[in-house]
Amino acid sequence: MNSLVNAPKKVAVQRTQAPGFFRYAHGDVVVTALYDGYVSLDPMTLTGLTDEERAEDLTRQMHALNADVDSAVNAFLIHDGKQLIMVDAGSAHVAGPTMGKLLKNIAAAGYTPEDVDTIILTHMHPDHIGGITNEQGVGFFPNAIVWTHKADADFWLDTNTADGLPDGEKAFVQIAIDAAAPYIASDRFNTFAFGDEIVPGLITAVDAAGHTPGHTAFMVTSAGQNMLFWGDISHIPAIQLPHPAATIELDVFPEMAVASRKRVLADTVKGQWVVGGSHQPFPGIGRVRQEGEGYAWVAAEYGAPSSLDD
Amino acid sequence: MNSLVNAPKKVAVQRTQAPGFFRYAHGDVVVTALYDGYVSLDPMTLTGLTDEERAEDLTRQMHALNADVDSAVNAFLIHDGKQLIMVDAGSAHVAGPTMGKLLKNIAAAGYTPEDVDTIILTHMHPDHIGGITNEQGVGFFPNAIVWTHKADADFWLDTNTADGLPDGEKAFVQIAIDAAAPYIASDRFNTFAFGDEIVPGLITAVDAAGHTPGHTAFMVTSAGQNMLFWGDISHIPAIQLPHPAATIELDVFPEMAVASRKRVLADTVKGQWVVGGSHQPFPGIGRVRQEGEGYAWVAAEYGAPSSLDD
Repeated sequence: MNSLVNAPKKVAVQRTQAPGFFRYAHGDVVVTALYDGYVSLDPMTLTGLTDEERAEDLTRQMHALNADVDSAVNAFLIHDGKQLIMVDAGSAHVAGPTMGKLLKNIAAAGYTPEDVDTIILTHMHPDHIGGITNEQGVGFFPNAIVWTHKADADFWLDTNTADGLPDGEKAFVQIAIDAAAPYIASDRFNTFAFGDEIVPGLITAVDAAGHTPGHTAFMVTSAGQNMLFWGDISHIPAIQLPHPAATIELDVFPEMAVASRKRVLADTVKGQWVVGGSHQPFPGIGRVRQEGEGYAWVAAEYGAPSSLDD
Repeated sequence: MNSLVNAPKKVAVQRTQAPGFFRYAHGDVVVTALYDGYVSLDPMTLTGLTDEERAEDLTRQMHALNADVDSAVNAFLIHDGKQLIMVDAGSAHVAGPTMGKLLKNIAAAGYTPEDVDTIILTHMHPDHIGGITNEQGVGFFPNAIVWTHKADADFWLDTNTADGLPDGEKAFVQIAIDAAAPYIASDRFNTFAFGDEIVPGLITAVDAAGHTPGHTAFMVTSAGQNMLFWGDISHIPAIQLPHPAATIELDVFPEMAVASRKRVLADTVKGQWVVGGSHQPFPGIGRVRQEGEGYAWVAAEYGAPSSLDD
C-alpha cells in the first residue's frame, strides 16, 4: 500500500439529521408520517408481565436493561386530494425538549398549518393534543376542526378529573383544556362516537378504549386497502407487541387497555392491515405478524413506491 | 356527531419522499448514510437453503413468496473533522432507473462531490463502483482518491475476467474498467490488502472475501467504538441473516462467501459492533443479535442522538 493521500481539505462536519417526515402511498391517499420527537419511558413501569419476560423483550431489541426506552412520538397527515387530515398533533411546548418538532416537520413535508382541514385525535394525552395550541393559547391550525371521542372530551375537559389521577398525570387535564380552548371558543371542536365515519367513505372511528376513556383507532380505507392508525395501542413496542398483556401506568383503565390491545392486534393480523402507530419507531408505519403467543412489528422500508416521487 | 366540517380548501398533494440520507453519531465521527436506490433481487436465486426455509424467512418479513425483494443500495460518508471518506458510491447510470440517486442525496446531506477526499470500495460490482464516474467517463469526485482491494482490482480491471463470468455478469468488467479509468489516469486509484489501515487510526480493511475476490469490510474505530461497514455480507437480509449459508448467484466464490458471512456475523455479535450494510434496509445502520442458529437485524431508530442537531 503506497501513500497517494492528498492533504485533505477541511470541510465542515454536517450534523443535521434528515427531516422527520416520511411519505407512504396508501390506496389513493398519500400518508405523511411526522416526527414530533421522542418520550423516554421506564420499561420497569410496565405491569402485566414477568421481569424475565421484560428482560427477554428488551434484550431482543438490544435495549439496555434498567434504562429508559426512547419511544418515538409520531403524528400523520392523510391527503385524499380533497382535504388534509392530521392524526394527532404532538406536544408543542407541553412535554419537554425531546418533543415539539411537529410544525418543523410539517413544513419539511411541504405543508403549512393553514393547510390542515381536520385534526382527529386518538386521545387527549399531552403528546397528542398538546401540539394544536401555542403557549399563548392561540391555535396553531387556524382552519382546522378538531375531533375527539366524546368520552375523552368529557373526561379530560373536566377539571374534577385531576383529583382521581396520580400526581404525575394531574397536569394532563389542564394541558388538554388549554389546548382545546381556542378551538372550542371558535366552534371548531367536535366529538365522535366509535363507529362514526368521521370522513365519509375514508375514515372510521374504531374502539380502542382503555388507555383513555375514548382512546380511538382510525381506520382509513382507500381503494379497498385498510390502514389503521392505532394511537397508543403500544408505548414500548419492544415489550407490548410480544407481550400484549403488558400495560403502562398511564392507562386510565388498564384492564380495558389490555383487552383493546389484544383485540386490535388480533384484528390487524387477521385483516392484514397496514398500521400507523403513535409510538412505533419513526415513521411508525409497518405491519404486524403473529409470533408465538404475541406479535412482531415489520417496519415499512424506505424506498419510493412507484406512485411517489423521489 | 354533528357536521361542523368546513368546505375544505384544495391543497396540492405532496408526494416527494423525504431525502435519502440519515445521520448517525459513531464515537467522534459522524456517519451519513446515503440512499442510492434499490435493486430487485429474485429470492429463488439464493442457494444453500431449503425452499421451506426460504419461504419461512420471507413470510417472517412479510415479503410475498415468488416475488422480487427490493433491497436498498446504501453508501456512507464518514467525517472525522479532518477528512470526508465515502464507503462505496452507488450505481449512477450503470444499473437502471431504480438506482443512481447518490449525488442527489449527497447534496441533501449538505455535501458536494468536491468535498469527498477518499472513496473506499467494499468491492467493484456496478452498484458500488458505478457511481464514481459519469457516462462521459469523467469522475464525479474530482478531489477523491479511490481505494479498493488489490484482488478486486486485479480481477475486475482485467478484460479476460469476463470470459469466466455468467452472461448476466460479463458487463460488470467493462463497467468497473470505465468507472476506474479517470481515477487511474489521474493517479488517484490505489489498492490495499486485508489488515491495512487505510485511514490511520480510523479505518482498517477486514477480510470479507468470497462475494468478490477482494470483497472487504471496513472497521471504523472512533473513541473506542467499533462500526463495521460490511459491504455485501448480505443481499437479502430477510434470508441471509437467519440462514447465513444462503448465498447469491453473483458470488464469485460462493463457498468462501458463505464462510466470510458466517465469520463476519459471528464476529459482529461477539464484538457488539454497529453495522453499516450496503443492502440492509435504508439507512442500513443497525446491530445484529444471534437468533437460534442464525442472526437477526435490529435497525437503528430515527431520533437524533444528543450529539446531533435536529
